[in-house]
Amino acid sequence: MEIVERISEVREIIAGQKEKGKRIALVPTMGYLHQGHLTLAKQAKQKGTFVVMSIFVNPLQFGPNEDLSRYPRDLEHDAKLAQEAGVDLIFHPSVEEMYPQKNRTTVQVSELGNALCGLSRPGHFNGVTTVVSKLFHIVQPDYAYFGQKDYQQYLIVRQMVRDLNFSIEVISVPIVREEDGLALSSRNVFLTPEQRQEAVVLSQCLAEAETFIRQGERNVEQIEEKIRQKITGESSGEIDYVEVRSAENLEKPEVITEPIVIALAVKFGTTRLIDNRIVEV
Amino acid sequence: MEIVERISEVREIIAGQKEKGKRIALVPTMGYLHQGHLTLAKQAKQKGTFVVMSIFVNPLQFGPNEDLSRYPRDLEHDAKLAQEAGVDLIFHPSVEEMYPQKNRTTVQVSELGNALCGLSRPGHFNGVTTVVSKLFHIVQPDYAYFGQKDYQQYLIVRQMVRDLNFSIEVISVPIVREEDGLALSSRNVFLTPEQRQEAVVLSQCLAEAETFIRQGERNVEQIEEKIRQKITGESSGEIDYVEVRSAENLEKPEVITEPIVIALAVKFGTTRLIDNRIVEV
Repeated sequence: MEIVERISEVREIIAGQKEKGKRIALVPTMGYLHQGHLTLAKQAKQKGTFVVMSIFVNPLQFGPNEDLSRYPRDLEHDAKLAQEAGVDLIFHPSVEEMYPQKNRTTVQVSELGNALCGLSRPGHFNGVTTVVSKLFHIVQPDYAYFGQKDYQQYLIVRQMVRDLNFSIEVISVPIVREEDGLALSSRNVFLTPEQRQEAVVLSQCLAEAETFIRQGERNVEQIEEKIRQKITGESSGEIDYVEVRSAENLEKPEVITEPIVIALAVKFGTTRLIDNRIVEV
Repeated sequence: MEIVERISEVREIIAGQKEKGKRIALVPTMGYLHQGHLTLAKQAKQKGTFVVMSIFVNPLQFGPNEDLSRYPRDLEHDAKLAQEAGVDLIFHPSVEEMYPQKNRTTVQVSELGNALCGLSRPGHFNGVTTVVSKLFHIVQPDYAYFGQKDYQQYLIVRQMVRDLNFSIEVISVPIVREEDGLALSSRNVFLTPEQRQEAVVLSQCLAEAETFIRQGERNVEQIEEKIRQKITGESSGEIDYVEVRSAENLEKPEVITEPIVIALAVKFGTTRLIDNRIVEV
């Protein structure tokens, strides 16, 4: 496995692999890898591709009051884990390499970004789509892997790929969880031991919500309210949103008639966690 | 020369050419070809590339009160001219092929679009950058050719390519003019004989402005004012803008110290013409 920091190096290595007939997979990450990221890499590897993992904490997708500066980083450890997972190339650019001049160009996906995390993180998804466009042009992958934990991000990137005719297959990979159900996240490291224990309520209430639906509940308000009550009753978490939405386009149904995603964002102290569950009815 | 209407056909043909080691050039047009377009194609051909010309009147770059429906079209004649100029493939998609579903994704370049044609045609350049992104992803060219007549468009596309790391060289080709100096444009066909005669004032006042500058004039207001007086005095043209701007970034200088572009847009009846001249000082 190689680690490179320059765009020109990536291009050269990719060109060599493509000449050999290799298909290219991209796993875009912000580093501080956990099993969620590594599952993406392993799936890509299983397809027989040349696996490129980008590790870049992208300033463009952080708001002014967000956790850019404290976002955890550990390249050495990441490199070890990535190699074990079968990654062939780590692309770890500096901010100057990715944004050498003032960035004037933005890629925007409307509608899908106007809900859920888009409301509490204005500009976030424009930062994501812009940097993902850049990475797509640099790496020119055949496949790109995204975790289902950031489900809205996956839908937005998929929409961008369709609308702009990127010749890339976007693949979503199920959430990886701790034994007790907490979705893996680089931000979990910020939780105090108490918050860590409380945070298990997120996956629990999603599982319960699925049970309600399986038992016949179709009223969206009812489901959301039950989840809210459980979170507020059983933890110190401060709810950002709890939403039942169409899994296809994030539109808000009144009653459930199609596959839905139950999505939530909850703050424990200064740490904001997200989780979701897709339910096919 | 082949003419295809489907994105999948373009991808297949391009893949075949790339396998043979051919470099790909894209000449994006809205058709109704004139020598300006054909010069782009010929230059591309001289480089030994496989030349793809797109012919697509892109609804996204026309405002609600603009001339989308009357924009001139003549594919048969275009095909003949393109073949003579050395084009290898015409891509002539339908609106449904390019926008099969509601287009949610927009590529925006800030600042460069906030002047000149961007003011009188709000949304125009977002339509341009979005469709050019799509064409870039479909054709995956090594080179893309743009006419200098749409100088602002060239700067915006160049900025987009830099910011988003497209692996494409953007090439600007000088304006092609009629004998009397009128810049070639598909819209010239709408001019009445009188307007056609009057329109020569545009290239004339640009040439005069260059002479003023060569004689030592450095005051931007003075130069613009002289141009305005000539247009208003010698024609029925209604000025949209006359601007002296930095040729690099379109910023407005007070005095001229670096290469500048003198750009103008003037309406003759319902027909809006643009022209420009770059002056290196």
